[in-house]
Amino acid sequence: MKYAQRMADVRPSAIGELLALGADPSIISFGGGYPDASLFPAKALEDCFREAIRAPGGAAMQYAPSNGLAHLRGQIAGLMTADGTPCTAEDVLILQGSQQGLDFAARMLVDPGDVIVTEDPTFLGALIAFQPSQPRYAVVPVDGNGMRTDILSDVLAANPGARMLYTVPDFQNPTGVTLSMERRHQLIALANQHDLIVVEDTPYRQIRFTGDSLPTLKSLDTEGRVIHLGSFSKVLVPGLRLGWAVAAPDLLMRMGLLKVAADTQTSTLNMAAASLFLDRYDLSDHIATLRRAYAAKKEVMLDAIRQHFPQAVTATDPEGGLFTWLTFPEGFDATAFMRDVALPQARVAYVPGATFFPLTPRPNTARFNYSAQSPEKIQAGIAALGRALQAHFL
Amino acid sequence: MKYAQRMADVRPSAIGELLALGADPSIISFGGGYPDASLFPAKALEDCFREAIRAPGGAAMQYAPSNGLAHLRGQIAGLMTADGTPCTAEDVLILQGSQQGLDFAARMLVDPGDVIVTEDPTFLGALIAFQPSQPRYAVVPVDGNGMRTDILSDVLAANPGARMLYTVPDFQNPTGVTLSMERRHQLIALANQHDLIVVEDTPYRQIRFTGDSLPTLKSLDTEGRVIHLGSFSKVLVPGLRLGWAVAAPDLLMRMGLLKVAADTQTSTLNMAAASLFLDRYDLSDHIATLRRAYAAKKEVMLDAIRQHFPQAVTATDPEGGLFTWLTFPEGFDATAFMRDVALPQARVAYVPGATFFPLTPRPNTARFNYSAQSPEKIQAGIAALGRALQAHFL
Repeated sequence: MKYAQRMADVRPSAIGELLALGADPSIISFGGGYPDASLFPAKALEDCFREAIRAPGGAAMQYAPSNGLAHLRGQIAGLMTADGTPCTAEDVLILQGSQQGLDFAARMLVDPGDVIVTEDPTFLGALIAFQPSQPRYAVVPVDGNGMRTDILSDVLAANPGARMLYTVPDFQNPTGVTLSMERRHQLIALANQHDLIVVEDTPYRQIRFTGDSLPTLKSLDTEGRVIHLGSFSKVLVPGLRLGWAVAAPDLLMRMGLLKVAADTQTSTLNMAAASLFLDRYDLSDHIATLRRAYAAKKEVMLDAIRQHFPQAVTATDPEGGLFTWLTFPEGFDATAFMRDVALPQARVAYVPGATFFPLTPRPNTARFNYSAQSPEKIQAGIAALGRALQAHFL
Repeated sequence: MKYAQRMADVRPSAIGELLALGADPSIISFGGGYPDASLFPAKALEDCFREAIRAPGGAAMQYAPSNGLAHLRGQIAGLMTADGTPCTAEDVLILQGSQQGLDFAARMLVDPGDVIVTEDPTFLGALIAFQPSQPRYAVVPVDGNGMRTDILSDVLAANPGARMLYTVPDFQNPTGVTLSMERRHQLIALANQHDLIVVEDTPYRQIRFTGDSLPTLKSLDTEGRVIHLGSFSKVLVPGLRLGWAVAAPDLLMRMGLLKVAADTQTSTLNMAAASLFLDRYDLSDHIATLRRAYAAKKEVMLDAIRQHFPQAVTATDPEGGLFTWLTFPEGFDATAFMRDVALPQARVAYVPGATFFPLTPRPNTARFNYSAQSPEKIQAGIAALGRALQAHFL
């Protein structure tokens, strides 16, 4: 049957399998992109849900407008404006996590065989979101300053039909690197020149440890070509499933129509509770707490890697976000090592890097998350893995 | 640009516009499919959200498996089994409302130009969900016993490429009619004969006023052809956005892959709170309350229609659900009457029936909801509309 054919190459969720491993308490998992649950503002959310449920007329339990509660859209516009991307409630569409924005973008812009341009490596969840649209990929390597825009120029010249570029400019998933100011301008210029829509995914943007925030691509957008995606998953809690898009009116209108079609609306209760949180509590205070905690954990992980891993293993030193990216010596297979050694012997999980490459996997890479585990577990897990690696490379 | 072309004929949400009207407190709206907010189990949900947020390790605020919390899937399987459709947690996929199941079904089964078979009229939200897949429609009229399966047989013979049939067998939206036992068997036999996938949408199934529940199509399914969609929106609260699919393993696996792609997961908090509600409270008690209240309101509305409307206007007398379907004399235009008379003069809203017909609108029809308004408002609104209709038909 046709559906079988169509869905045959949807990728099984490697993320899902690894998240499942993370649930085994005897494994120290650096796999998922989990925020630290001990930092969740639980008491505040409890108060917000109580207040939302008690709202007049049961309004927070009833249906709501498909594009989201107007008050919350205004609050998000306020956060975006304060972050240097001026917009109003009219420019905001509430999504079921920013993941839904990736799905909508592909459904709007990509027919089977069309080219999507991504960083190499890129966010696995985006590849999963795009897969039902059956794209081809053109990929651009990253270095310490993010996507190599000099190579992007060549890639676009070689792929004149490309219509969509996907990027995580701040503390990229999986590499942790940030697109430099110069390259942000170059990327926008190339998008204008090649008639591209740019999907800017920013779940980690607020979690900056050091240095100054760089302008969003949306704020540099001169032709309404950037779909900016934001999320409360990392700065509030993932379990709310609240994200948003900011885009030019024609794009946002079409995403709004897809929202009605796809699931009618995001949960009224969750929108109402998040909106109350933003009214009653100081999100930037909470984010400051997260920054301090994750910066400290990042240092713990990088110190432990330097102490315990073979010298030949390199790790990125991100200025923010949740991940560091490890490169092992050529010939090392991080997938086989996890299956054969890391999981059964060291009792440690990570995400083998191969899964993040749309075209040509680099088996000697891996993504390590430092936000989910305690400093003690980070030290213990990295030490155990270091012993296994030292033995492997003896 | 291509996205403009692709999205050009996505239907603007007539439901959305009418829901917006319902928010004007000076209008008595029979338009939306809103449940009665005064019956929401607010205190119980407040307790459930508090308990969920306090769960060990912040688990209800964290990411969760994409197919849904296992305990909730088991509870839903228990409800389905008690309703005569035996299944296990493995057979259940949690969705962002059953609307998401409509989107997934079309994405799995329909390419542009493929035929979807529906009741005529049918649920507008389904037409909106299917529209991005650009189907053609083949329609089957309904009578007091639901879809005319004798005509369905002819329609399938005339459309040998049809692959998907969409139906609301219980208290259909918009007509309120229920598919008879004999026709349920005939529908399954025809699906087997013509190699169809049947999407069975059952949001109102539990809200039965009179008579015995009929078997779900899923329970009669002999070849794994029925995708059963269920929802907590009408029996708990819509603001949770919780629905589910029960389907054969191959179909459910493919819907599960689309779930990962579309939004990763439904809200952990909402799943956890609903699961606690099912553990701590008696859903069937709550449903019994809803049945009594909606049955009484239905009687109030039909009595008022008989009393105030011209004799030539007929209304269905549903055995359950949220809607009655009105047929006005030939030549009456329910859309124009709403715009020109009902809204500005009588201050009453309903849904003009034309919007529910995939192919050929019947302008002299309308859908009236009786669940949302109080008995007093129902009487007042129907009386005001009756006066306007009597004047119109003088």
